Amino acid sequence: LSSHLGPRGDVRMVDVAEKPPTQRRGVAVARVRMRPETASRLARGDTPKGEVLATARIAGIMAAKRTPELIPMCHAIALTHVAIALDVDEAAARVTITASAEATDRTGVEMEAMVAASVAALTLYDMLKGIDREMVVEDVMLVEKSGGRSGHFRRSP
Amino acid sequence: LSSHLGPRGDVRMVDVAEKPPTQRRGVAVARVRMRPETASRLARGDTPKGEVLATARIAGIMAAKRTPELIPMCHAIALTHVAIALDVDEAAARVTITASAEATDRTGVEMEAMVAASVAALTLYDMLKGIDREMVVEDVMLVEKSGGRSGHFRRSP
Amino acid sequence: LSSHLGPRGDVRMVDVAEKPPTQRRGVAVARVRMRPETASRLARGDTPKGEVLATARIAGIMAAKRTPELIPMCHAIALTHVAIALDVDEAAARVTITASAEATDRTGVEMEAMVAASVAALTLYDMLKGIDREMVVEDVMLVEKSGGRSGHFRRSP
Amino acid sequence: LSSHLGPRGDVRMVDVAEKPPTQRRGVAVARVRMRPETASRLARGDTPKGEVLATARIAGIMAAKRTPELIPMCHAIALTHVAIALDVDEAAARVTITASAEATDRTGVEMEAMVAASVAALTLYDMLKGIDREMVVEDVMLVEKSGGRSGHFRRSP
Amino acid sequence: LSSHLGPRGDVRMVDVAEKPPTQRRGVAVARVRMRPETASRLARGDTPKGEVLATARIAGIMAAKRTPELIPMCHAIALTHVAIALDVDEAAARVTITASAEATDRTGVEMEAMVAASVAALTLYDMLKGIDREMVVEDVMLVEKSGGRSGHFRRSP
Amino acid sequence: LSSHLGPRGDVRMVDVAEKPPTQRRGVAVARVRMRPETASRLARGDTPKGEVLATARIAGIMAAKRTPELIPMCHAIALTHVAIALDVDEAAARVTITASAEATDRTGVEMEAMVAASVAALTLYDMLKGIDREMVVEDVMLVEKSGGRSGHFRRSP
Repeated sequence: LSSHLGPRGDVRMVDVAEKPPTQRRGVAVARVRMRPETASRLARGDTPKGEVLATARIAGIMAAKRTPELIPMCHAIALTHVAIALDVDEAAARVTITASAEATDRTGVEMEAMVAASVAALTLYDMLKGIDREMVVEDVMLVEKSGGRSGHFRRSP
Repeated sequence: LSSHLGPRGDVRMVDVAEKPPTQRRGVAVARVRMRPETASRLARGDTPKGEVLATARIAGIMAAKRTPELIPMCHAIALTHVAIALDVDEAAARVTITASAEATDRTGVEMEAMVAASVAALTLYDMLKGIDREMVVEDVMLVEKSGGRSGHFRRSP
Repeated sequence: LSSHLGPRGDVRMVDVAEKPPTQRRGVAVARVRMRPETASRLARGDTPKGEVLATARIAGIMAAKRTPELIPMCHAIALTHVAIALDVDEAAARVTITASAEATDRTGVEMEAMVAASVAALTLYDMLKGIDREMVVEDVMLVEKSGGRSGHFRRSP
Repeated sequence: LSSHLGPRGDVRMVDVAEKPPTQRRGVAVARVRMRPETASRLARGDTPKGEVLATARIAGIMAAKRTPELIPMCHAIALTHVAIALDVDEAAARVTITASAEATDRTGVEMEAMVAASVAALTLYDMLKGIDREMVVEDVMLVEKSGGRSGHFRRSP
Repeated sequence: LSSHLGPRGDVRMVDVAEKPPTQRRGVAVARVRMRPETASRLARGDTPKGEVLATARIAGIMAAKRTPELIPMCHAIALTHVAIALDVDEAAARVTITASAEATDRTGVEMEAMVAASVAALTLYDMLKGIDREMVVEDVMLVEKSGGRSGHFRRSP
Repeated sequence: LSSHLGPRGDVRMVDVAEKPPTQRRGVAVARVRMRPETASRLARGDTPKGEVLATARIAGIMAAKRTPELIPMCHAIALTHVAIALDVDEAAARVTITASAEATDRTGVEMEAMVAASVAALTLYDMLKGIDREMVVEDVMLVEKSGGRSGHFRRSP
């Protein structure tokens, strides 16, 4: 029987008390597809709302810390590190966001990385939607996870 | 010159005081791709963390209300309506989340719809990652927007 | 068919766009039953964590403003007034908390009053539990509601 | 002299640095009294806002995590487990909510259990108030507490 | 008698229902005094935590929106505009932060401007404390206020 | 090279995983300068919004716990103790706020003390601005810090 089930199959926050705290790491990516001209303007800093990349990065980092408020069954985790990199690929008309989160805890931090990447992507959308409403946030996914019983995971490309 | 630029091109929250409050509506979708078996188990309610769909729906609705806390330049908006529908497509091994947000306000609610769809998708990921870590949140995008100066927008499929 | 049901009976935040904004008021009470000695000490300000009543009052007012973050289907409402009165009844060994909330909005504020009364009561419990762990928060209930289609409601004692 | 008093008797967050982290557990209940017909409709899922029980459960779990934001003097605690059970007693026209919270920490988690039970009860009220405005949240109380210096506590029924 | 007093002189959130919504504006400044070398490094972007000014600006804007969560008796206000300017004065070894907030509401937005200026200043401190722990946030003050019964206020320099 | 820089100099939350948890303490002060009559009224409790000092104290303590939500690069820290003292100096027409924060953690708590002092000062301003709009929050600064590699710091007066 799954450890996630309450006495009647109800949803509940999983009990992690028995797990020892270990070093955890999660890395997620999100890609934002846009029109070529939007990517070019972003690359040369010529966008109507200035400081787009810094705003997205900061929004992602702040959102990572609020993961347990957003995702109902997530445990509160004291993150020891969060970083977000944004790569503007003009040729592909796409921005790739890579978010990493780390903690020494009883449970994994993959959701923190997923939330950080998603919110950074949504912020990019918000800052650029005035010039390109049809942008798409595509492929938010976990690419790496380490620590915990399930061992190291790395997504094959 | 763009109305979004401060005296020195710094980021700032756009001034919307001059816009009249009108009826606004935004609809966004997010798709979560998963293994066929995961979709089947979800469709028949046989998942380790029970109540997956209700949890995702509630998480999305609650997140919509917190959009201005997550997206730095978003204005606080008193939403009059939020709804989230989840469609489990076993054949395609994919869940489609449709989030709609409405308000009578000076600014649009597309970010509220985008945030609601994204957080519902991330919650789905969280509730199912124990059985399928390689799920991908793909294609978070605005599909409809009405109200405001820019007129009606509907994304061509 | 109920207006609260989505296409498939799913939970959703009710659409209130059609309702006109009117003056709304809600009043709720909560009672905290305690040992006679606890009530006496509270009445004469002889409690280990000082400023108990002020802390409960402030906690209740602050919680009222966060109602839509706590109660999933509540709309964000710009409250125009919140007040909390605490009445220490030594003879009955009970504190009665009365919370009132007001707004000019499309939907009622009874949940804001209920949340304010409950959180003030829980704060009282927290501040006094060191000397009386068996206190009970009893009878959190709406006693008055005005504004909106359903007309004036006053609970018969 | 109480350790909770500041130099002048002012309220302050108690110093828990000297306490060793131990396994903590708190269990609280809340009862919601309603009209018999309301309980019957809830029991057979025939309510206007569907998914009432899941919404209450999720709201309670999410609120437990936000206890230190609501209760002014509560310490932030990394909960290892939260669960909420709702029991609909048609005969008694009453729902009993049992909330348990656990952590490995320097201070107790009884407030987290009390907040979870209260917010689940308030959410039940919110979801059902359209059909039964006179429901009463009664008897929010701690029923069990373990861990820490004060030893095991179990409320006699 | 003051309108801010409850029946027994208790604190409460002032009733603003009778005030008509008008255009409100508040401007506050904060000054951060630092060592000359710190100001020089900040001016030429040579600081260990890069993007200091953007981070401070974004933090201030986001904090303005959360004013009612921080300042207990503040009403929730839907801000129509927030902007923050930072001026690095190398000669004076000081950064001046100017925060403006606007809304169409029943109550003033001076606290929103004060909170924005303060949090931007604190963020500056956080980003630079590794190289200059003795920085001082000095002179957080309201410099302009318009809208509402009290008329236009402008601080004499 | 600074440990705070990402691959491209972008802002990120510093990695503290390698630091051992130690006992940390930070003390900050804020001074609020006001008109002599305001200080006198505050000292004798004759102010229009009653319970000013308790409200400021509670607001400061609650804000300390929310530091990582306000200051973008701050880590979440489980504070073991927070206290705020307010000293009303009628002769100097000034209130001095002293905030102390403590934790057993990998990183310092000086920002928690700075935020607590600032928000208590801003709350004082909010509660008294009706009678003295020209109050100034001056000299928010760290006066003591202990724990961590950088050793004990005490500001010379």
